[in-house]
Parts: sequence; C-alpha cells; structure tokens
Amino acid sequence: MKEIRIGLIGFGTVGQGLAQTLLAQKERLIQKTGIAFTLAAVADIAIDTLPDEFSGITLTKDADDLFTDPNIDIIVELIGGMEPARSFLLKAINNGKHVITANKALLSVHGREIFKAAAEHNVEVGFEASVGGGIPVIKALKEGLVANRINYIKGIMNGTANYILTQMTDHGTPFQEVLKEAQELGFAEADPTYDIEGIDTAHKLAILMTIAFGLHVHLDDITVEGISNIEPIDIDFAKNLGYRIKLLAISRNHGDHVEARVHPTMVPEDHMLATINGAFNGIQFNGDTVGDVLLYGQGAGMMPTGSAVAADVIDIGRNITIDAVNRVPALSYSPNYIGEPTITPMDQLICPYYFRVTALDKPGVLSLITTIFGKYDISIKSMMQQEHDANEPVYIVFMTHRATEGGVKKAIEEIDALEVCTSPTVKIRLLIPE
Amino acid sequence: MKEIRIGLIGFGTVGQGLAQTLLAQKERLIQKTGIAFTLAAVADIAIDTLPDEFSGITLTKDADDLFTDPNIDIIVELIGGMEPARSFLLKAINNGKHVITANKALLSVHGREIFKAAAEHNVEVGFEASVGGGIPVIKALKEGLVANRINYIKGIMNGTANYILTQMTDHGTPFQEVLKEAQELGFAEADPTYDIEGIDTAHKLAILMTIAFGLHVHLDDITVEGISNIEPIDIDFAKNLGYRIKLLAISRNHGDHVEARVHPTMVPEDHMLATINGAFNGIQFNGDTVGDVLLYGQGAGMMPTGSAVAADVIDIGRNITIDAVNRVPALSYSPNYIGEPTITPMDQLICPYYFRVTALDKPGVLSLITTIFGKYDISIKSMMQQEHDANEPVYIVFMTHRATEGGVKKAIEEIDALEVCTSPTVKIRLLIPE
Repeated sequence: MKEIRIGLIGFGTVGQGLAQTLLAQKERLIQKTGIAFTLAAVADIAIDTLPDEFSGITLTKDADDLFTDPNIDIIVELIGGMEPARSFLLKAINNGKHVITANKALLSVHGREIFKAAAEHNVEVGFEASVGGGIPVIKALKEGLVANRINYIKGIMNGTANYILTQMTDHGTPFQEVLKEAQELGFAEADPTYDIEGIDTAHKLAILMTIAFGLHVHLDDITVEGISNIEPIDIDFAKNLGYRIKLLAISRNHGDHVEARVHPTMVPEDHMLATINGAFNGIQFNGDTVGDVLLYGQGAGMMPTGSAVAADVIDIGRNITIDAVNRVPALSYSPNYIGEPTITPMDQLICPYYFRVTALDKPGVLSLITTIFGKYDISIKSMMQQEHDANEPVYIVFMTHRATEGGVKKAIEEIDALEVCTSPTVKIRLLIPE
Repeated sequence: MKEIRIGLIGFGTVGQGLAQTLLAQKERLIQKTGIAFTLAAVADIAIDTLPDEFSGITLTKDADDLFTDPNIDIIVELIGGMEPARSFLLKAINNGKHVITANKALLSVHGREIFKAAAEHNVEVGFEASVGGGIPVIKALKEGLVANRINYIKGIMNGTANYILTQMTDHGTPFQEVLKEAQELGFAEADPTYDIEGIDTAHKLAILMTIAFGLHVHLDDITVEGISNIEPIDIDFAKNLGYRIKLLAISRNHGDHVEARVHPTMVPEDHMLATINGAFNGIQFNGDTVGDVLLYGQGAGMMPTGSAVAADVIDIGRNITIDAVNRVPALSYSPNYIGEPTITPMDQLICPYYFRVTALDKPGVLSLITTIFGKYDISIKSMMQQEHDANEPVYIVFMTHRATEGGVKKAIEEIDALEVCTSPTVKIRLLIPE
C-alpha cells in the first residue's frame, strides 16, 4: 500500500488534534484513498515524551530533523506566530517537502514569499485550517465555486469575538466582564488582542480575498475595528431595532476596486449571520452564478482544526501518489494572474448607519444635530430617545438611510464638537442585506 | 493551451445555465486552471437552433452523435428522469466519456449500475448538482470532511417543500392554496409529487448516505412522509411551542445500523435549520472530528445548479489533463469498501413527539388518552388545549419526552379508536437538538 509520511511541528492543542485524527481515522482513510497516512515524526521544543498512544513516532526538539528526513513527505506547521514558523515553512519547502499550516497571521503577512517558494519547488501549501477552522471554506471557494465571479465575502470569522458578543447580547453583561469569563473558560486567550480587535478576522479576510478575487491583499489594506468599544446599551438598542451586532469581515468586489473591512456591524435579525451564535463561525460568499452560499461550523478548537489540517494532508497525499501535485493552484488563480488590489477608500463606503449621540437634554439640541446630518447628506430613517432624568445627558439614537463614510466622519466630528454633546458619538455600520 | 470539450444532453433550464456559465467564466477558468473549457456540442430533441451567443456549437437531436465524437471528453446529462437518461449515461461511459449528471432520481435508483460501469471504464461520474443545487455539499463531504466518521446528516434538501412550509408559516395559508401559488410563480412543478411527498428529498438522502457512510442505500430503505397533510393549525401550535415545522432528511449512524427517514419535523426555533426559509436548502453534517458543519444556499435553479455542474466539469477537466482520473473515488469510499446497510427499523426510532388529538370535550377524555400514553411508556412533557365552543370537537396538543415510534404507533391507533376521538391524531416528530 502507498504510504504518506507526515512530520508535525508543534504538539500543542491543534497538533494533538491532528495526531489523534490521523490515528482514529487511519482505517477509514485507507478505505477512501488506498493510502496509509502515517504520522512519522513530531518536533516540539517543550515535550520530552509523547503520550502512549503515539508510541513509535519519532520525537525531536529540532525541527530541522524533519526537513532533512527523506522519508517525510508533508510537513505540518502548527506552532503559530511569525518566527520560527516562517523559517520552518521555507526550510521545509526548500527541502522539497509539501507544507500545511493553520497560521493565518503568517500567511496574511508572509504568504507571498511562502507561496512563491512553494511554486519554485513545485510543492503544495495546504492552509484549509487557516480560515473557518473545521469548515471546508477554502476548498468550497477554490473548487466548489470555481465557476463564479465572487461578488462579496461576508462573515463571522472569529469565534472568541462572536462568543463575547453573544454573551453580551444574551445576558447584557459588559464587555470586560464577559472577556474575563471567556478567558477563565478558555474561550479567549490571555492576550485577546488579535481576536477582539478584529486583527485575526482581518488575517482571514486577506486570505479569502486573494482566493476569491485573485488579488495580493496586504493586511494594512484592510480597515479594522474591534469590539472592545461595544457597550450593552448599543446591543440593546440594536435588539429593539431588530438587529444583532456581529464582528463581520466584509469585502465587496466592485471590479476596479474592492472593499476590505472588519468592524462591528448591525445585522438584521432575520439574516443568517445574525443567527450564528457562540464560538461558531459563518462565512457567506455571493457568486454571480451560484448566488448566496453560507458555510457554518466551529472556527477553532483542537479537533475541528485537526479535521481541516487532516483534509489538507489527504488532499496533498492523493496528489503526491498520483503525481498530480498542484492540481489546484494554492491561491485558486495561477500565480501570474494574481494582481495588485485597488482598495475602496473607506471614505467612499456607502451604507446605512446607527449613531448613538450622548447630549444634554436642552431645547434645540435635536435641531443642531439634524442640521449637521443634513449638511453632509445624511438622511435619517428613524430616531429614538430613551426616557431619562432631566439632569442627565441623554442617548439619542439615529438610524440613517445609506450615507457615505466620508460624510459621516465629518458629521460626527462636528456633532462631537457641540458643547451639548458630552461623550463621543458611537457609530455602527449596518449590513446591507442582499 | 489544453482544451476540455464538453457535450451537453438537454438544453433546458439547467443546461442553458451551464452553457451560459461556461461562456461567461471562460477567461476566469483559464486563469484558474490553464485549461480552455469549451461547450462543443448540444443534443436536444426539442430544439432546432441555439441562441446566437452559442453560435459555433454543434446542435444535434441525436445524443449518440456526442458519445461517438472522439473530440468530446465529458458528457453532461441534464434531461432528468429515468430513461433515456440512464441509457445515455451508460452509452457515454461505454464510449470512454466522463459523465456528469444532476439527476438524483436516476442515481438513487440506478446509481450502482452507473458507478460500476464508470469504474470498469475508468471514467469519472460527477454529480455535485444532484444534492443541494449550487452548494458544494458533495465535495465538502467527500473531501473537506474526509477525515471524519459522519455521525449524522440532517437537512432541508427540497426548496419547493421549504418554500411552501415557509409561506404557510408566515401567512397561515393552507397547503393547497400555497401550492397553487407556488405553481403559478414557478416555485413548484405542475406535478409536485416528488417535492411535496418527500421523494426528491429521499433521493438526495440516499446519495449522501452512500458517501457519508459507505453504504449502498436503496430508496425503499428510507421512510418517507411528505408535507401535504400539514395544516396551518399545527404550524401555529408549533410556533407557540417555539418550533418551526420543516421537511427534514435525517440519517444517524449507529454503527451497526443507520436511521434513514424523511418527514415533517418540529425544529426548535433557535436551531439553524429552523432559520432556513423560502426556496433555500441547508444541509448539516456532524463528524466525530469536526463537530457540526452546515452548508446553506440555493438548492435548485438554472444558475446555481449550473455552478455545481460547472464545478464538476472543471474538477474532471483538471483530472483529465494531469492524468489523475478518479483522484477521489466517486462515492468517497473505494467501491470494495461500500457495504450493505442495516436500516434502523422505524419502530425503534426514539424521539420526542407532537400529537394533536381531536376529541369531543367530555369529562374523562383526558384520562382515557393519558392512560393509553402511559400504557406505551409515552411520557407527556406538556399539554395544551384551545379555547373552544362546547359542542365542537376540541384539539388537545401533547408534547412528549422521548418515546419509541413503535409505542407511539400503537398508542395512536388506540386513541383514534376511542369513540370520543373524531378525527385521526396528527403526529409530528421533533428534531433532537444536539
């Protein structure tokens, strides 16, 4: 029987998930592929012995041992971070190994270098697990929707942020409190910056945009706002208005330019993305042929991520054994067809907005504010004001028709400069349902 | 440049969708695959000329012309039905052509013969469009979730039935009226039997079960109940109890036996499947590694189905040009690992139930009914009774804890035999949320 031998760098949560999966599914994979997939070696600087179930697998602290082992076909990098992950992948590629990674941060920053090296050495780069955890979102986009112009990508791509927003929505708990709970429960990392500030979501969006549109996307092309400023009061107002607040990645293909943004978004409650709760991810594509497709599942975690890494192992293993390496280009488009993007300037974005203005309840305040909106062509769809104590500042919530981000920014600057406005205005963009 | 030439049988809605897709996406597909995909010939007995945009494409009334054309690589069958579709596919295969079909009825009945012939001639059978229309559900299951034992399949797989149930739910309109509207709007066929009686859903479930579990599933293995007996009153009761009624296909893998059933199901309103409305499909898999994954999109229609057929064309085209035919086995498992199923007898099914009993409002009725439930170990979770006119029969609704179908059947027989019961009891199974 044909055998494919795997070298694994990093025996952390996902690494163990992969090891367990390859062991548990071995017979099933033989039945499906005719190939024996064998975890041959593990490199991890922090481990002295492997659990009993993995006896017979070589353990080393030196990843170089894996790159130079002629019996290893595929190297799986699951240590995360920039270095030494980047060097490891490049070394593996330079040694003619196929590589698999779940490292979205690395790919979104150094992807171009890695994919170029892989093309030069005619090896494959598998990265299904880098977006959407166990959901086969990259395969769906690259192969299932191959005969489509992708019109847009919209998605909940970070389970931690979605868990926090769900808890805030369900229980009205403030952000910091939910974050602390999430950290205690293991749903958020000790340093949650990437997750809650939208950076991890932006990494994933950059990867999907390259595949969807054939564009080299740089991280700083993407406008990123996180969820740490979302307050329960905004979630409440949103609920009353029929919306849920979700951290969305959104990219729209305008042909000569593409939107690229990550920010809290008001999603109509009957939209599928509004119904995705807890640590789950949901990623929606719109293609000119297929219309809307949405994929839902666990976007992180030991076993789901292991499932996606294993799918890459099997995909590449099939290609190796039938001499069909790079059957599907890593980034969907052939390298020479991947171009430089023109990113839609954020000021040109057009969407409806939610504003929460904090102002003293004095006569004429509303007129002052609405005059400013009028000046910047911002048309108000509805307004609501909470009952309040006469001496306290009051929240005035506005929902607008479609307006431009450029005008909105200027309007908010002017409103916040008003003497009657006691706190900065909160602005949340609405999802355009389509 | 490499070229893959396609022969299309059937220039109906989906056939035209495929033709348009191949034309519109030609350049994009070259950028992704390095292959020119060309629609070379169309066979359709009912057409004398092709629209102008397809000039240059051979048109014939005789499908045999396509099978014997040495310049055609792939035959796409989109005429539907059993014959001559079956003979066409077999002839194409016997002539060494790769074949693609969206014909779930044919595959679920004659699939074994077709896949066997294809294996003997070492050609591929593409059938992505046969389940879930444009949603890449078969690819996700075969490749994305390859490293999983599939625990269950649950899904809304028929857009017509889901459209009708959605309309009934939103507007309280009776079934027959909605069906008539749907027919006028083109959402339901003149003969809607397959769609509304769950037969089309069963065809799709049979195909998915084979891929998921490696079992030859026969259509009559599947218990099938349609939606034509669902009444607005049951939808109303369901709503009040926090459920939506959906036509679901359900198959659970018990290891030594598998459930296989299609029937109206009460789905908790916060479950993703409850939120899938209109003509959309949603198909959920649970894998031991990945957990829950759900795919959502348009399950039918000219262009979505065309997208899936085109994806098969490209998949097979890639395999042809790199000599990697049958890179992935058509049914996921290698043919010699596909076994015969043991289907869980329906009487052994265990789930919670909804009953609507119609009875005269006489003293002691409730006691008579609950005694029967007790006799068959059916434990009542809640009971509700509508306000009513004293002389009219009354609806009594019961929600049960988990009970066995066998006991439920006997209990209902006894209840319906009571003199005070004036109409047959309506029974709807509940989805076990997990």
